[in-house]
Amino acid sequence: MSRLISLTTDFGHQGPFVGIMKAVMITRAPDAQVIDYTHEIPVHWPPEAGFWLNRGFRDFPPGSIHVAVVDPGVGTERGVLIAKADQHWFVAPDNGLLADVFAHSSESIVWRVSVEKLVAALGLKQPSNTFHGRDVFAPIAGALAADELDLHQVAIETNEWVPSHIEHASIAEQRIQGSVITLDHFGNLITNIPGELLDSLRDPVVEIGGRHYEFSSTYGSVSPGQMLALVNSLGVIEIARAEGHAGDHLGLSRGAPVSVRARETQPRAER
Amino acid sequence: MSRLISLTTDFGHQGPFVGIMKAVMITRAPDAQVIDYTHEIPVHWPPEAGFWLNRGFRDFPPGSIHVAVVDPGVGTERGVLIAKADQHWFVAPDNGLLADVFAHSSESIVWRVSVEKLVAALGLKQPSNTFHGRDVFAPIAGALAADELDLHQVAIETNEWVPSHIEHASIAEQRIQGSVITLDHFGNLITNIPGELLDSLRDPVVEIGGRHYEFSSTYGSVSPGQMLALVNSLGVIEIARAEGHAGDHLGLSRGAPVSVRARETQPRAER
Amino acid sequence: MSRLISLTTDFGHQGPFVGIMKAVMITRAPDAQVIDYTHEIPVHWPPEAGFWLNRGFRDFPPGSIHVAVVDPGVGTERGVLIAKADQHWFVAPDNGLLADVFAHSSESIVWRVSVEKLVAALGLKQPSNTFHGRDVFAPIAGALAADELDLHQVAIETNEWVPSHIEHASIAEQRIQGSVITLDHFGNLITNIPGELLDSLRDPVVEIGGRHYEFSSTYGSVSPGQMLALVNSLGVIEIARAEGHAGDHLGLSRGAPVSVRARETQPRAER
Repeated sequence: MSRLISLTTDFGHQGPFVGIMKAVMITRAPDAQVIDYTHEIPVHWPPEAGFWLNRGFRDFPPGSIHVAVVDPGVGTERGVLIAKADQHWFVAPDNGLLADVFAHSSESIVWRVSVEKLVAALGLKQPSNTFHGRDVFAPIAGALAADELDLHQVAIETNEWVPSHIEHASIAEQRIQGSVITLDHFGNLITNIPGELLDSLRDPVVEIGGRHYEFSSTYGSVSPGQMLALVNSLGVIEIARAEGHAGDHLGLSRGAPVSVRARETQPRAER
Repeated sequence: MSRLISLTTDFGHQGPFVGIMKAVMITRAPDAQVIDYTHEIPVHWPPEAGFWLNRGFRDFPPGSIHVAVVDPGVGTERGVLIAKADQHWFVAPDNGLLADVFAHSSESIVWRVSVEKLVAALGLKQPSNTFHGRDVFAPIAGALAADELDLHQVAIETNEWVPSHIEHASIAEQRIQGSVITLDHFGNLITNIPGELLDSLRDPVVEIGGRHYEFSSTYGSVSPGQMLALVNSLGVIEIARAEGHAGDHLGLSRGAPVSVRARETQPRAER
Repeated sequence: MSRLISLTTDFGHQGPFVGIMKAVMITRAPDAQVIDYTHEIPVHWPPEAGFWLNRGFRDFPPGSIHVAVVDPGVGTERGVLIAKADQHWFVAPDNGLLADVFAHSSESIVWRVSVEKLVAALGLKQPSNTFHGRDVFAPIAGALAADELDLHQVAIETNEWVPSHIEHASIAEQRIQGSVITLDHFGNLITNIPGELLDSLRDPVVEIGGRHYEFSSTYGSVSPGQMLALVNSLGVIEIARAEGHAGDHLGLSRGAPVSVRARETQPRAER
């Protein structure tokens, strides 16, 4: 089976930047397959890339390589990481992007790349100052996929990396506190609150934007236009509007605080 | 030759949902190739997916598998269909999405899937309530592509499915009546009126939004800015504006009524 | 190694047009891999496709095939070109799209296709008037990738083609004159001024929209919100705003004039 490489960026679809990265990877690893994970990470916002990766990489086969380039510090002294976590490979700038993946993995090893040694080992041109996706990250991923990267030659193991810009959801006194991490194309508000945390609350109710919503099992469980909360397919709490756009309806987006409490301590939930 | 899988959704490009479906399919069928058909079906609007599929699937090689997930009823009791029509495979929710394909195929067999039996046969995890693309449809497509799905084990043949939400174009008294199904990126208004219906009309003229347009052979046949009608590359009637956006120009979009009549019964066509 | 085909269009992502082209190409060349270069060329604006291609095709392996369909003249008498330039293949309409590639290649051969002979040689259906991507360009690319196109049978060598709609950057009296060709997803203003031209100027300053900007090595070299100029990863001059959108900030887009002069002749640069 050919190696799968997932590719995550904030490049959008204008211009050939994603296509050029793929060409560089496939040139080094002709048998690899590159799968677009998403290229619509908000510009310069690494933690959303880490959130999505952490919630989806296990749907790829073990040994897959996940390359993520959301890199406002390109061309500066920021580091370059290669990691192996739960049998998957990760390649990304050291800017907090991968912190969420490491925090949720049962085992991970992280290496810090010497770009100078990488250039020598892989015979690269001197990297540009503005497109390390093409000049650094794609060559690493291609060489990994082709089993032609000698990690010890180009990197050293490390226990230090930039932490995530986003705090984990926390629980205290029967109240879970988290926030909206992202919206999907349907306008569902996706939070950083893992569904497992609900186990500790009896009859939980979600509070967001001053309103309270009950949990349902799926969108079709309520009438079109009604709001609901659910534990979504990625395992986190989501606030949705049946056949509607929850974000627009509430006027809320990334960063909005979300809390969950047992119903006894709440006013009656609305929809 | 590797099996081709076309993938049609209303997921857009935010988030990793399309990429995750591809990973699931390729994991089961490493030799398959997944081709994005489109992910910009209007949210929760299955008939547009069926329209595009019906008008394009024959450009894929026989044996290709067409997966379409526009699925407002995900997690409810709505059914799951597998079909073989004109030597191609189709996998989609039973919500009218495939009705257009069945209506235009010379032969089709339709099976209704038992998700419970599918889970057992393919060793799946219990499907989530909100992402059957990953949990049901992608595993089916992957197993089909790998020739590892025993249809009789997981599904039963059926003659009943949800019909399309959109009526076919009709013809009566020298007048064809249809509607705009979709717009392309250029703003061309694409209708559900097959070009063959024109054969019955002498010197036909299209009426839309109270205006009348003549037929031309292509966009470049008229001056930039002029409106025209044509039978497009998909075989249906389209209203276009040369080097312009017909939809914006007319202020019309999906659902707008369109009729075609012989010119004798019409006032002089405008452009 | 399988042949790589890059695909550039102005089709956007609505509708299945890109997917259909891929199906046609893969059907003819099952071992080829199609890489999306970009589908967000401004509608009907061939020179931007040529600009991107010229600045990126060398990142693909020699022998790759670059298909570009930005084709306002589809269905008219405009020509169809196949070219080999610097060991890469190109397929596009003869509307100026490829002129930039030819101008920057050290060697190129250009052939003009007879569509009639092509139809006969490849056993094609009569092409539609509106989708030569599917009916002409994809079959050519697929046949090239499968090494099944006899060029002499379907085309004749030519020295004439439609020139680009955009002038090259020029230099005179210590002043380089060019223009903004495109913006990327980050809002960086990308010009047609090659970085090599700077060698002739001492201490160069960029002028755009009545303001002057100094050169920096990368976005992170200045504070967030500051403007800068740089020679970007594609080798041309770019005007950027650190962690911001230069185009929106200046209210400028494609076509805006840009000049570069030695600082001595300039007022003090702003940021």
